[in-house]
Amino acid sequence: MLKPGDTIGILGGGQLARMIAMAAAPLGLKAHIFAPKGDNPAFEVSGQFTEANYDDFQALSAFSEAVSVITYEFENVPAETAAFLDCRKPVLPNPKALETTQDRLVEKTFIRSLGLSCPDFIAVNSLEDLKAAISSLGTPSILKTRRFGYDGKGQARIADEASISTAWDDIGRAPAILEAFVPFSREISVVAARSAAGDVKAFEPCENEHRHHILSRTLLPAAITPRTSLAAIEAAERIGAALAYVGVFAVEFFVVGSGDDETLLVNEIAPRVHNSGHWTIDGAETSQFEQHVRAIAGWPLGSTKRRGKIEMINLIGDDVENWPDLVAEAGLKLHLYGKREARPGRKMGHATRIIPE
Amino acid sequence: MLKPGDTIGILGGGQLARMIAMAAAPLGLKAHIFAPKGDNPAFEVSGQFTEANYDDFQALSAFSEAVSVITYEFENVPAETAAFLDCRKPVLPNPKALETTQDRLVEKTFIRSLGLSCPDFIAVNSLEDLKAAISSLGTPSILKTRRFGYDGKGQARIADEASISTAWDDIGRAPAILEAFVPFSREISVVAARSAAGDVKAFEPCENEHRHHILSRTLLPAAITPRTSLAAIEAAERIGAALAYVGVFAVEFFVVGSGDDETLLVNEIAPRVHNSGHWTIDGAETSQFEQHVRAIAGWPLGSTKRRGKIEMINLIGDDVENWPDLVAEAGLKLHLYGKREARPGRKMGHATRIIPE
Repeated sequence: MLKPGDTIGILGGGQLARMIAMAAAPLGLKAHIFAPKGDNPAFEVSGQFTEANYDDFQALSAFSEAVSVITYEFENVPAETAAFLDCRKPVLPNPKALETTQDRLVEKTFIRSLGLSCPDFIAVNSLEDLKAAISSLGTPSILKTRRFGYDGKGQARIADEASISTAWDDIGRAPAILEAFVPFSREISVVAARSAAGDVKAFEPCENEHRHHILSRTLLPAAITPRTSLAAIEAAERIGAALAYVGVFAVEFFVVGSGDDETLLVNEIAPRVHNSGHWTIDGAETSQFEQHVRAIAGWPLGSTKRRGKIEMINLIGDDVENWPDLVAEAGLKLHLYGKREARPGRKMGHATRIIPE
Repeated sequence: MLKPGDTIGILGGGQLARMIAMAAAPLGLKAHIFAPKGDNPAFEVSGQFTEANYDDFQALSAFSEAVSVITYEFENVPAETAAFLDCRKPVLPNPKALETTQDRLVEKTFIRSLGLSCPDFIAVNSLEDLKAAISSLGTPSILKTRRFGYDGKGQARIADEASISTAWDDIGRAPAILEAFVPFSREISVVAARSAAGDVKAFEPCENEHRHHILSRTLLPAAITPRTSLAAIEAAERIGAALAYVGVFAVEFFVVGSGDDETLLVNEIAPRVHNSGHWTIDGAETSQFEQHVRAIAGWPLGSTKRRGKIEMINLIGDDVENWPDLVAEAGLKLHLYGKREARPGRKMGHATRIIPE
């Protein structure tokens, strides 16, 4: 169990690391950020940082000596990095969670092994595989690389048989899966934390809207039935327990149908704090970032109570230029990430509106 | 007007500077802390810091070049330091506010000049002055140094005439005032912000309990009449306007009598964020720290709406050892300041309970 004054090591220097570090401070815990050279806004809120590559084992070794526990803001931590660190200091969530979620094929196989549903999928290692998979799953369908995909990267939609080989080229002919297209009515996610003692506390499921594959808005309460809400939380609990997970994670779902016919398909698992949980900073009694810190510190989890009706808006690229209007809006909570350049598609900040219920 | 990416310079490295820096980050503003060598927990949450004395004008000059605006966490900023910096970058709140509040005699004279009441006082420069003042104000009364007093430091209570010369020695025979003892029913404070545009937004008056002259608990709502509440806010507005103040300040009052007979006496003005405003981090839509940053950035002020019934408890000295119980209490918000050593009387953190109304 960590005690005040101890240091949390965080791999990654982006907004998620930044918000974890900012949540650690009020608990009396220090943050040490480890990230490669670049625009690392997390450095601005941390007393200690190491600027080095993830395969710089000398730097990783010194980092591990300076911290009490190690966590990360992104699921693509190289396996060797995680293994190297895990021999030195606890890496939480554990490397098994990384392994399972870094590869869509492993992830989906894992999800099914728990008795949970996900869209139909077929492994694809060649153009021939892809053609065979298309004859089985039909079109439209989605080709996704097994590794390194996020925010729609590494994905190609296959509308008809004519676009098969273009799609294969588009994803760089990498090991992939073909996923059946799901005619979902909405997308939801559950952000949950599992403590070292095995307690799980989930925030209420939230409803997510995407634009160009990037989260655009998160709304609570989600327009789903109480039964669906419970089923989503129960699925997250099952996933957390099966991974012996410690920390915050998110499970994204497709909701198919509506009312009594609503069913859930697991879309993906994120072994980290999640964009769809950003509303918790202002809208819940404990933020997902504080919850993550509590979990990896070995402390009890906090209350997940929601403070009102929520709308969280992502500020993508140029959206951030609207900051003067946003800071002037009564009750709106603005969160800018301190990134130097507002490139298209780049998450620059978010804003949360809370309407008391 | 500051824009995201700009840097706020903060004089002082303690918990108030730390919480200002933490409030600046989500607004996309950076913090640069300037503080003498020592235990400076604000360094842990800031990307930039300068460790130097307040009379190191070379360091102050470099600091002023690295920031867009300069603020401070304590009222005892040396006048020459404030003047030196104010020629280079805006110092907010302005040095006049410092001048007025650094000296109890000047402060009380200012308060009276606004038509506000404060306890009777007489300037004391010698033991003879003190004896004369005692014959005029009687005992019990309080002898206070004009400068450098806080948390009861530089104060001596004079219970009877026999203790006059001991009291004079106790405060180091420094220029002082003798203040009439006020049989107050309670102590309250108003934490308010004044924007660059002259808008004032006050948080609701809070009720403060002290132990050994140090704030122990803050409660809201305060047990005062609506008329007293309005009068306290109106007094704060008058003080803010008269000082052409930009930023957050606190006005402490004694409440004398009760019900329809309640009257207010101004005790003191703090030209900075204030311990009695710490509840706003979790209990108000905008924290006093964000409000201060908004004001000195030239941005509009945020909503001061309260979220429920509030109890803020200071963790003084050893109180902090109770942290395992505090982190386990559902809904309690813990704030530890990251100080290395829990000396008696030292403010180590605070905790806020919010009960929905």
